[in-house]
Amino acid sequence: MSKIYVIGIGPGNMDEMTPRAKAAMEDSDMIIGYNTYIDLIKAYFPQKEFVYSGMTREVERCNLVLEKAQEGKKVALISSGDSGVYGMAGIMLEIVLEKKASIPVEIIPGITAANAAAAILGSPLTNDYAVISLSDLLTPVEIIENRVKCAAAGDFAICLYNPKSKKRTTLIEKCRELVLGHRNENTPVGIVRNAGREEASRVLTSLGEMLQHEIDMFTIVVIGNSTSYVKNGKMITPRGYQVEG
Amino acid sequence: MSKIYVIGIGPGNMDEMTPRAKAAMEDSDMIIGYNTYIDLIKAYFPQKEFVYSGMTREVERCNLVLEKAQEGKKVALISSGDSGVYGMAGIMLEIVLEKKASIPVEIIPGITAANAAAAILGSPLTNDYAVISLSDLLTPVEIIENRVKCAAAGDFAICLYNPKSKKRTTLIEKCRELVLGHRNENTPVGIVRNAGREEASRVLTSLGEMLQHEIDMFTIVVIGNSTSYVKNGKMITPRGYQVEG
Repeated sequence: MSKIYVIGIGPGNMDEMTPRAKAAMEDSDMIIGYNTYIDLIKAYFPQKEFVYSGMTREVERCNLVLEKAQEGKKVALISSGDSGVYGMAGIMLEIVLEKKASIPVEIIPGITAANAAAAILGSPLTNDYAVISLSDLLTPVEIIENRVKCAAAGDFAICLYNPKSKKRTTLIEKCRELVLGHRNENTPVGIVRNAGREEASRVLTSLGEMLQHEIDMFTIVVIGNSTSYVKNGKMITPRGYQVEG
Repeated sequence: MSKIYVIGIGPGNMDEMTPRAKAAMEDSDMIIGYNTYIDLIKAYFPQKEFVYSGMTREVERCNLVLEKAQEGKKVALISSGDSGVYGMAGIMLEIVLEKKASIPVEIIPGITAANAAAAILGSPLTNDYAVISLSDLLTPVEIIENRVKCAAAGDFAICLYNPKSKKRTTLIEKCRELVLGHRNENTPVGIVRNAGREEASRVLTSLGEMLQHEIDMFTIVVIGNSTSYVKNGKMITPRGYQVEG
């Protein structure tokens, strides 16, 4: 029977993919996704048909998924992290609704990069936090800047996805300035590259010095709130418990 | 060798617990956690020693974990969802640092309730979002209200954890008012109970009518941003793709 699974595969290693996500891929006739993500998982599903799809081809990819499902197939559409966070869940649902297709769509969550990165840094998201993508391909820069400003004013810990690309190099600088309007230069900042993959790495720095480190599309930037601190290599945002005594 | 694992077990079913979390529990001599969470997983680890710990006993629980680890044990401290989101990761790290203990601590992320709830609702967190706990046990009410106000002003989708308790019944009303300062009454709201467990249930409602539904400590409330909509039973926050054409 036709079905569409929209699957968050987690950070990109089998050890952090849920059994539910794995089972859905095993149940599918075909697995479709962005090239890099297919490469991450392909070896673990040797019997499956894979379709590679390029970056920024999201609408085309969803149309293909729907087409294959309408031919009677079970199709898995994969995102890294959580399919519901800057992933394919929204656009897939929108296209199914737009085409008035009556194919069931199951959204399967995964560990999103913010949470994977936080665990690598220590515990910077233990209190309230905001998740913001700096990609301006689909969201106007003014909206992004306003969100950063509001998150800073609310003293949220802030996770930045897609913090810097080859073409978009100055927005991260502007965002840092906006946060500095509400927090001091010593505020801890964690930069995690390839969170959850074998080649993961991290840098602990500060708002004052963060731009001296490499930031690109493979990194997540976590900015602490006003109470965050770094000690013994761990970035911590306290929740407010009385530790002593 | 002594070790502390701080583990996010995910929403509460084995199907959404990562293999990494499961392996860490299997590697431990002892599993410690809040009563409800131990009950969720106990049957799957029949050989293990379990220690039940009461609500609001977080510091005591971490001290016990450290004590057992210092006796030479491998100890798993579990949280539901992600241990790094209102979970035990922060306080455990703080206590290990405070006591200058040299026990290695490994933080293992899990799927947090915001993401589990979102998948049940459709895709309400596809764009930028803020995660806020309404619990005022550790955070002053003024800070919580300011965060809600800032998240509303930034047009974030908003996930509320611990939205209402038996004693704390009016803060959710105040928060709704604060969001209504920036969004209209028709803004979609999803209420998910026991996200990811067998008995999960959901309600799709609106900012105008949300208080007519049952909200308590077992629910997560997801408030859409200004572009969110509900169609065919799915709550969607569009990312901005051109669906037509």
